[in-house]
Order: sequence, then C-alpha cells, then structure tokens
Amino acid sequence: MTTREHCAALDAADPLAHCRARFDLPADTIYLDGNSLGAMPANVPARMQRALEHEWAHGLIRSWNDADWYPAPQRTGDKIAALIGAGKGEVIVADSTSVNLFKVLVAATRMRPGRRVILAERTNFPTDVYIAASVAELTGCELRCVDPDEIVSAIDEDVAVVSLTHVNYKSGKRYDMAAVTRHAHEAGALSVWDLCHSAGAMPIGLNACDADFAVGCGYKYLNGGPGAPAYVFVASRHLADVRQPLTGWHGHAKPFDFTHDYAPHPAIDRMLTGTAPQLGVIALEAALDAFDGVDLGVLRDKSVALGDLFIALVDQELDGLGFTLASPRGAAQRGSQVSLAHAQGYAIMQALIARNMIGDFRAPDILRFGFAPLYVRYVDVWDTIAALKDVVATGAWNTDAFLARKSVT
Amino acid sequence: MTTREHCAALDAADPLAHCRARFDLPADTIYLDGNSLGAMPANVPARMQRALEHEWAHGLIRSWNDADWYPAPQRTGDKIAALIGAGKGEVIVADSTSVNLFKVLVAATRMRPGRRVILAERTNFPTDVYIAASVAELTGCELRCVDPDEIVSAIDEDVAVVSLTHVNYKSGKRYDMAAVTRHAHEAGALSVWDLCHSAGAMPIGLNACDADFAVGCGYKYLNGGPGAPAYVFVASRHLADVRQPLTGWHGHAKPFDFTHDYAPHPAIDRMLTGTAPQLGVIALEAALDAFDGVDLGVLRDKSVALGDLFIALVDQELDGLGFTLASPRGAAQRGSQVSLAHAQGYAIMQALIARNMIGDFRAPDILRFGFAPLYVRYVDVWDTIAALKDVVATGAWNTDAFLARKSVT
Repeated sequence: MTTREHCAALDAADPLAHCRARFDLPADTIYLDGNSLGAMPANVPARMQRALEHEWAHGLIRSWNDADWYPAPQRTGDKIAALIGAGKGEVIVADSTSVNLFKVLVAATRMRPGRRVILAERTNFPTDVYIAASVAELTGCELRCVDPDEIVSAIDEDVAVVSLTHVNYKSGKRYDMAAVTRHAHEAGALSVWDLCHSAGAMPIGLNACDADFAVGCGYKYLNGGPGAPAYVFVASRHLADVRQPLTGWHGHAKPFDFTHDYAPHPAIDRMLTGTAPQLGVIALEAALDAFDGVDLGVLRDKSVALGDLFIALVDQELDGLGFTLASPRGAAQRGSQVSLAHAQGYAIMQALIARNMIGDFRAPDILRFGFAPLYVRYVDVWDTIAALKDVVATGAWNTDAFLARKSVT
Repeated sequence: MTTREHCAALDAADPLAHCRARFDLPADTIYLDGNSLGAMPANVPARMQRALEHEWAHGLIRSWNDADWYPAPQRTGDKIAALIGAGKGEVIVADSTSVNLFKVLVAATRMRPGRRVILAERTNFPTDVYIAASVAELTGCELRCVDPDEIVSAIDEDVAVVSLTHVNYKSGKRYDMAAVTRHAHEAGALSVWDLCHSAGAMPIGLNACDADFAVGCGYKYLNGGPGAPAYVFVASRHLADVRQPLTGWHGHAKPFDFTHDYAPHPAIDRMLTGTAPQLGVIALEAALDAFDGVDLGVLRDKSVALGDLFIALVDQELDGLGFTLASPRGAAQRGSQVSLAHAQGYAIMQALIARNMIGDFRAPDILRFGFAPLYVRYVDVWDTIAALKDVVATGAWNTDAFLARKSVT
C-alpha cells in the first residue's frame, strides 16, 4: 500500500530534486503537461532581457556578429545533440517541426529515387501525416499509412523512407528505434524519427540506432517556450547527399556572397532556410541550461519511476471509478507520459485543472499526464491521483463552474 | 546650400518627430540600418517580461487560451494588413519570408496548371530566387530569370506566376506594383510580391493593385526583432483555391480534432504550418504599436524627404570623393533606402560604424543607408554625410583599427 509519506520519501531521495529550483513554477500548481508546453526555466527572463535591451536595442545590427547571433542555431543544435545521441554538427535549430519534417522527407525521397513509398503510421501525430501526404503529392510518391504493429512488416523494397514518431503523443507508446531502423536499412529504406515526445525525457541514441534523420520541437521537455524553434538531425554520413527543398539563403554555402545560384552549405547549416528566429533561439538556448550536469540515465530512471508510481496508484486508488490505462503498462514500451481513458475524461480534466492540477485532454476520452523528470515530484503524482479520486468519487466534476471555462488544448 | 541648421529645422517641423521616443535607441548612435534590422520599440521588453513571467511561467499551457496566444498570428496579421493595403483576414503571421514564399509559389503554380514558367528577376534578393528554383524543380516548372527592365516584356502565356520584390534590397529601386500586376493579369498570370523592403516605410496598396499574394519579414521597418516571424498575404478572392504544400496541423480546419486527413482551414489560417513562434509573435505584435496613429502618407513623405536630403547632400558635400549614387535619383522609383557605390565601400562603412553611424555594406562596393521614418532624424542624415566626408577626405578609413573589427553583415 503506497502512501503520500512514501512519495515524500522518494522526493527526499531524488538525485534530481535540486533541478526543480531551475524552473519558475507557480507554487500552487501541479504541472503534468510538460509534454505539451514545458515549464519556464528560471534563467530565461534575465537572458531575454539582455537580448532585448543590450543586444537588440543597443547592439542593433552589430549583434549578429558581436553577440554571436549568427552561430546560435548551430550552437543550440549542438546542445540538443548531446541530449539525443547525436554528434557535434549533426543537429541545427530551425523553423518548426512540421517544416523540418518536410525538408527531411523530401531529402530522403531524393536519396532513394527508385522507390516510391513513404511509410507512416495511422496513429501518428496528425501533422506528421499531413506533411508526409504533401511530400508524397509533390514528389510523386505514395503515402502508405499502417497501424503501429504493422510497421515492420510493411517495410519492403518499395519504401523510400519510414517516418515515425518515437513516442506517441496520445498513448505515450514508444517505438524500438534501433529495431525499426535496422529493419528499414535491411530493406534499403531510410528512417525519419520525430522526437517531440521523447527528447529531454530520456536518453535517445540516434547514432547508436544508426538513425538517418530526426526532427523535434523545442517546447516540450526541452522547455524552450511556446512555439520555440524546432531542430533537425542529419546523420553526418548523409550530409553531403542531402538536398532539402526549402533552399533559403541561410542554408547557402556563402549566404553573404548573395550569389544568384543556390549552393548548399557543406555542413548541417544546409538545413537552414530563412533568418533564425533569434529571440526564440535565445530562449531555447538558455532553457537548455536546465539540463546542465543531468545524467540522462538518471533522468530516465526518474521518468520511469514517476510513471510506474502513477500506474500503481491508479490501480490502488482509482479502481472501479471508470478509468482504464491507455498507455503501455511496461515502462520499456512507454515514453514519459501516462494516459488514462475515461468516458467523462473532458469534464474530469477540467475539474482537475480548476484545482490547479494541469494535465490535458485528447478527444474522445484520453486524459494525458506528462512527467517531466526535471521538475515533477513524486508527491505531485500522489496529489493528482487523490484529486482524481475525489473528483470522480464525489461527482465534483459535474458542476457548471469548470465546464464554463474555456477548453485547455 | 543646405546646412545642419536647415536639417534641425526640418526635425523641429517633423510631424513624426514624436515617434522616435517610441524606440529604445542608444543616444550616441545614428542608426541607418533599419532596412536590415529595425530598432527596438521601447514597449517590447515589458511585454516580453509579462509573456515570460506571467503567461508562460504561471499561465503555462492555459495561456494558449487564457492569454490569447492562439489567435496571435491572425491578430498580428491584421495589424500588418493595415500597413500594406490588405483587408482583415487576408494576412497571417507565420514562419520566415523564405518559407512563406515557398508556400505561395507552390500554391500559385497549382492555380495555373497549364502554365510552366515562374518568372523572377536576376537582381532579386537571392533567397527569393533560390526558393523559386526549388519550387520549379518540385513542380516541374521552369524558372525564368530576367533583368528588372525585361520583366514586363517577359510575361507571356506560359507564365504561371511573376515573383518580385517590391523594393530591391541593394539598390532600393521600387517596382510599379500596380502596372506589373496588371500586365501579369492581362497575360493570365498571378503575382507574388515580397514586401521585405517596403512594408512599414510607405503605404502599399496590395488590394488597390489587385495583387494576388505577398510575403514579407517582420524585422526590418516593422521592427519585430531579430528573425521576427514573417507574414503572408492571400487576396481573399483566392483563399478558397489556395493549396499550399506545408500542410502542418495549424493550417487544418480543425487542428484539435486530430483527424487523419488534412482539410485546409477555410480562412487565411490555412497558410499556417506548425505551432506559432509565440515569443516572436508577441514581440512583433507589441512592436507594431509604434505605428499607432501614424498616417502612412506622412510616413512616406518623410521617407522621401530623408532620401532626397541625403542625395542632395551627397551632391553638395561628397563631390569628387569617389561616391556614385546606386539608387534611383527620383523618389518615385525609390524605396526608403539610398545606396552609394564606392571602390573603398567596405572600409568606409567600417570607419563609419566605428563612429557609431550604422549603415551596411553589400559586396562588391555598395554602402546602404536606410531611412526608417519613425526614428531617423534629418540631422542624422547631415551628420552621416559629414562623417562620410571626413572619413574619405582625411583617409580616416585607412587605419587598422576598424579593419580589425569583424564584418557587420
């Protein structure tokens, strides 16, 4: 029988407990939605103030050089590379996840000219499928979408590229990146991994898995702020062959020569398009300091422990209240979130949020709880379960007060 | 004979003189590079601080609704629409200029399926040409690049779309948007206008000219900050027909239904791709307050007067020092910048910058001076000319001190 005291003891022994102070979190709030928008690292406002008042206002155009704005996408990319098992010079910050996915999918199909299938997954986050469909139309390929369990068997000699999200946004289910990539390579296909729901919550071995391309956002477990710039990974062995279609001047070998013809930069810079969204890059770069000195294995251990605790407490406390587990029970198959299904899921989540316990809801019936290991405490898990129990057991969700609130998406 | 006193009198009579106080400019600096990176509006830091410490840190995910983050791209687009002669709902903030140009060029070629030429211009800003070349490759079109004077005669029945920049980045030369658009339409082609170097410096009549598409950046005369998000205009008559290729979830009719198939939003929202770069949008939205109550005709009058004064003082003060005018002499053909050519242009600009008078240099020999009418004073023009005279007449540029400085690009 797990108790709140047990949870408090886990917090007291948590080797990452000190990291919570690196974030500016409201004292009265339990935040389990870092898988949607990460909490704000406490160092960001001062860094942004300096960027605005010193670098922009007083440095003006000179700051592109003097404040090292130009190399910020590369520098921040290298910081992210260390979190996802990539090497220096293999990751760069740019644009949004969707835009970067477009770049790498077009590039991948060009690297497999004899093959005409983009293999994707039916339950993937929709933007990935929408982008893949558009790439298929533009490149004359076919988009083949299958169920998650059918991915490996669907990889054949027609497949140019397999495009998957490492951890599913809804269920939190995690692919075996190494195994799927190996199958893709054995069939002569390339792999693209969307890391939105895994980067910053666990070690990811892009190079250990021999991954070809990856993309991901800066605003979930990386805590870069709302709509933070995204990143793109290209395995160094592919760099010279990558021809991405958004050939803006910052991807040029010599952007300031202003030549008429496009020549891609020899390095990862070729994945850039327009001018870097510098304020966003600055916030993201500062935010990544929250990972300073953090062992990613320890981070993953805590993520697993939080998720396992949550599931154990669902079993222990919420039995008979209508909840079913909508994530894999085994931690090896999970990312850093646990989803529950409940017929009244929307109303229950609204009631929870009204108590300043923030998860989110995905139609038709999924309550998502994300466990960002840098700042979520074991007692937060206990208190959330206790609130869920109270909300459902007492019918507290069935009031007009919170239903009148706007939907939190 | 124009004197500094004459210039000071023009400042005293300037109906926009009060707008300078809306910017945080270093007191010892003359800033003539707002055509590259606009100065910082003084209200931006406080707005950003609120966005960070209140909306992100404490509002967390709720701020997408509670702080009205979701409609920020549309709201900010409407503010820009008022500056470029577009209607409400025809402009939205998104991505970078290059990315938006890709969207509208692909969309335009799809609207003219029987035609296979994208007509562009050899001296255009390179990113526009690079993107057009990529679109041509992906869509099976041909990119036809001609000299500026040949554009109108090159519009024939093969042309799907004419893609031009309203004001040239290097010469400051301005196209007659109405005339070129009329020629394009008479030949059955569509028009795309890049407004990077005109928006915020003059009235632009997109709808008065019957323009079809436009794109532009937020960081020049709109003062949105380094790498500020860009915008895209689609004439409302075309909205229902526009199929843009970067089909991310925020362009979907119902993004939070998370449906498998893409269905474009019926409104300008269909031009969105990923999650809006919210911190950048917030800075840009606040920055646009600098235009509050500003009559764009008065703004243009001042822009013309500053440029004409500069040219008159080049004639009066710099005769025989090796400068030649590299912009049109007639204001009707100019944007809001004046360029000079000089064989020692790079060194001279470096010497000027060392005196805190900031323009910029474009290879091989062009010195650019941008006159952002909201904050540039007539005495700034005088003082810059006086410094140019001194630098060249005394050979002050030919020292090691400033040559050792890094290039300001």
